[in-house]
Amino acid sequence: MNTVEVCFSTELFKAYDAKGKIVVVVDVLRATSVICTMMKNGVKEIIPVRTIEEAQEYKEKGFLVVAERNGEKLDFADFGNSPFLFTKEVVDGKTIVYSTTNGTNAINVGRDAEQTIIASFLNISAVTEYLRSQSKDVLILCSGWKGKFCIEDALLAGAISGNLIKSGSFFTKCDSVNASMDMWAQAKDTMDTYIEKIAQKHRLKKLGFDDVIDYCFTSDITTVIPILNDLHIVPLEIR
Amino acid sequence: MNTVEVCFSTELFKAYDAKGKIVVVVDVLRATSVICTMMKNGVKEIIPVRTIEEAQEYKEKGFLVVAERNGEKLDFADFGNSPFLFTKEVVDGKTIVYSTTNGTNAINVGRDAEQTIIASFLNISAVTEYLRSQSKDVLILCSGWKGKFCIEDALLAGAISGNLIKSGSFFTKCDSVNASMDMWAQAKDTMDTYIEKIAQKHRLKKLGFDDVIDYCFTSDITTVIPILNDLHIVPLEIR
Repeated sequence: MNTVEVCFSTELFKAYDAKGKIVVVVDVLRATSVICTMMKNGVKEIIPVRTIEEAQEYKEKGFLVVAERNGEKLDFADFGNSPFLFTKEVVDGKTIVYSTTNGTNAINVGRDAEQTIIASFLNISAVTEYLRSQSKDVLILCSGWKGKFCIEDALLAGAISGNLIKSGSFFTKCDSVNASMDMWAQAKDTMDTYIEKIAQKHRLKKLGFDDVIDYCFTSDITTVIPILNDLHIVPLEIR
Repeated sequence: MNTVEVCFSTELFKAYDAKGKIVVVVDVLRATSVICTMMKNGVKEIIPVRTIEEAQEYKEKGFLVVAERNGEKLDFADFGNSPFLFTKEVVDGKTIVYSTTNGTNAINVGRDAEQTIIASFLNISAVTEYLRSQSKDVLILCSGWKGKFCIEDALLAGAISGNLIKSGSFFTKCDSVNASMDMWAQAKDTMDTYIEKIAQKHRLKKLGFDDVIDYCFTSDITTVIPILNDLHIVPLEIR
């Protein structure tokens, strides 16, 4: 039996021991949904960077750069953070540098773990299946919003941890797992109305970017699992 | 209309702006329940201290000291952290120095707010009524467990914020409020079984201290509201 834990914010991560565990990074609206979309469409690798300065340096070196803060594309960047931008034509075979408000911070925070993988609803079944196959303890790291708890990441954490516990190979003593499983149980059949409780939904709506929300809550459009390898995100090759 | 927010851990507090707000500190199992019990039984003032060293210094000066870490009384202290210890005979008219694993840290963290008050289920209606009377924004600070989210504090935060929003004088844009209100709605009529999800319940049981749990989830045994005044906790005098 392995354990599953949920951490609700990057700011809480230091209270957890990630050693020997698989860290699953979650930022449903929108970073990890975007990363899964890029992988589905054939991106070669993604370089997550924390600061705007780093992203700018990569741009000057000729890289394709996604850079967003508070939902909006930064001027120097090639792309903002909508998953719809990253079609096969745009990303296939490419290296993309990626910096967002919350998600890329979470990816860097989680990098001392045994493995760090990237989850969204878009690849939830593949992620669950992979975690079940590994016989390692799992720590799901929610990106949150500027250090705060956010509902959408808790819902995905609840969906994944619920699947793991139902499988019979995982147990938990973590309050955040129990709370997020309850939240997902309550939300999953009423997402149309439940979505109104999510602050990020209203932030994206204000910016005219809420067209991505239904997509980001769609399960299993891909089986690819992005994994952090030497500070780059690449598709996990399951042997 | 005023806002209500919930912060799930002292480690997240820096992401919030407490200026001009009433901070409501919550540590259901057990610090804020103990503090409300002491106040009900006539304690003159409580001096919350963060470190064991500070608590020891006060002990050497002749103060009555409550000091607990990980649920257990520290050797030098007069009392551990069970609310049942603090009868009228023990605390009436006294000054008590108080240091616990999580709760006293939260009280100190929240001290830059306009006001910092102490809530538990034991004084929930008095706290709600007071907050409604003040026409100020409210920020409920959950102590959590060693920096992590904990369910019992979220339940009280959900109960209080739900009462405020139902009153019609408060609104929220805070995901933690929406999540905790949902948790309380789900838990409140099934506490006998819901309690099993709470890690702190199992920690206290292991130490033989779970006899306090039913008491700590009892509503309205007192109308006293403890308030932080010049770093001491005293009964709020409502004029």
